[in-house]
Amino acid sequence: MSKSNSVLVVGSIAFDDVETPFGKRNGSLGGSAIFFSIAASHFTNVRIVGVAGSDYPQEAIALLEKRNIDTRGLEIKEGETFLWGGKYHEDINIRDTLYTNLNVFAEFKPKIPDVYKTTPFIFLGNIQPSLQLDVLNQMKNPELIALDTMNLWINTTKNDLMKVLKKVDLILINNSELSELTGELNLLKGLKSIHEYGLKYVVIKKGEHGAILSDNGSLFYAPAFPVIQPTDPTGAGDSFAGGLIGYLSACPEISSDELKKSIIYGNIMGSFCVEHFSINGLLNLTKDMINSRYKSLQQLITL
Amino acid sequence: MSKSNSVLVVGSIAFDDVETPFGKRNGSLGGSAIFFSIAASHFTNVRIVGVAGSDYPQEAIALLEKRNIDTRGLEIKEGETFLWGGKYHEDINIRDTLYTNLNVFAEFKPKIPDVYKTTPFIFLGNIQPSLQLDVLNQMKNPELIALDTMNLWINTTKNDLMKVLKKVDLILINNSELSELTGELNLLKGLKSIHEYGLKYVVIKKGEHGAILSDNGSLFYAPAFPVIQPTDPTGAGDSFAGGLIGYLSACPEISSDELKKSIIYGNIMGSFCVEHFSINGLLNLTKDMINSRYKSLQQLITL
Repeated sequence: MSKSNSVLVVGSIAFDDVETPFGKRNGSLGGSAIFFSIAASHFTNVRIVGVAGSDYPQEAIALLEKRNIDTRGLEIKEGETFLWGGKYHEDINIRDTLYTNLNVFAEFKPKIPDVYKTTPFIFLGNIQPSLQLDVLNQMKNPELIALDTMNLWINTTKNDLMKVLKKVDLILINNSELSELTGELNLLKGLKSIHEYGLKYVVIKKGEHGAILSDNGSLFYAPAFPVIQPTDPTGAGDSFAGGLIGYLSACPEISSDELKKSIIYGNIMGSFCVEHFSINGLLNLTKDMINSRYKSLQQLITL
Repeated sequence: MSKSNSVLVVGSIAFDDVETPFGKRNGSLGGSAIFFSIAASHFTNVRIVGVAGSDYPQEAIALLEKRNIDTRGLEIKEGETFLWGGKYHEDINIRDTLYTNLNVFAEFKPKIPDVYKTTPFIFLGNIQPSLQLDVLNQMKNPELIALDTMNLWINTTKNDLMKVLKKVDLILINNSELSELTGELNLLKGLKSIHEYGLKYVVIKKGEHGAILSDNGSLFYAPAFPVIQPTDPTGAGDSFAGGLIGYLSACPEISSDELKKSIIYGNIMGSFCVEHFSINGLLNLTKDMINSRYKSLQQLITL
């Protein structure tokens, strides 16, 4: 991997208290920047920007560094790390958030280290749009900017979000977010609107139903990799983004074919994520394991 | 189309009172046998078995016959035709059933005309399993038996349903029905169970998310054809079945490739159905219109 193949990610760094039908884990590693980084690290060089508290374990940072993730942008601040608690239903696609203790994340002001500023690929994890904009203002000549968001920001800070979107190339969004953002209930109409904002690439995340890529209006559908026992869906969306942007950043160019493949790799990293609690499903993966799922998914859509 | 390319369908014949965000229609033509027949008639010879009341319009029967659908098995009984009333939400994938007046359908006893008894393909629409079994007992050497069912029968008449399933080659089912039938929440585990009942082909209907074919455990995924304005989803599942079984019955043999294609044709007929109220989207279709959607769907999954 050359230095030019690198991705900067900004997002949350958290402890997760998670209960699913398959068990319970307290204080495990989580947060959008963490899931994204580890998933993307299988494809590219990752540079992480985020804040954790003084309670964040040195082992966690060592784990990231072992995966060649640059942690110079990971700020440790006096106080407690962001804590998220959630419980999944028997239908594991449904979850309730039990608590969201922002802690040091509440005052997060992303500071991009100088050595990060020319990183060609940027992933703006699901944080306040004004912070996403702050990050972009510190970057120099990015090649591709991708963004994740959520209903909360669409509803409460839409003006800021629209300002960021003007600079973004690729958005990851789900059906309901697309509807809220564009006012269109219909997928095709929503896609049309969002392309009119200037976004070149839209990726509709459909969870267990896979994902749709709209490359300037031209559609590609990638099913989810069928998982026998989804154990913990936490972080699946960020792992999906990590596979997608990680793969793309390592391609010689962003072609229509590579974009399609990147959606498949996104689905694959999402599938590995959900098979285990926390980040555990993303750690001990080999190229062969990833390629074998790629072949299966390809098979699944081969007429 | 040779005589050997023919499908017998047994199912409901109804009047539908439907309200969707796009309008309201009262007493329009509906019922599983009607949607299936018209969709399948674009591919094969259809023979319909069902019961309607003395209020059923001669024009409706003429319309079926104009599409070369054999109506000798359509029984007209003194009384009123089955009436179904439903209202769709703003999210058109959600609906409430307002009323179900079975009328003459309550006493339905399928009688298969002698000339139908050697029909090679059979589609058992979503009716009581004991009636589905009655139909099979009257048939001679069918080549392929396909069945649709619903949660009601899984919950109330599971023994009968299991008896029919032993004779069936292909089942159309959605995720929640699969879970209720097999006791497995997971798709792959549910598929494994249902193949163990002896079913060769399982088609998971996912509505707007398309469909999955499990051909003896080997999976193929076909996305739904993206529709700009779904107007009335009533009958989409039966139109899907009509496209699928209709196409398959016209193939020289049931190969793995033809099965995959049949799922695409199913999705296409479903997409035409939902674009208009009642059966209107299924009527004035040309081979070109169908083939053009086939190419688009193929494109959507071409890596």
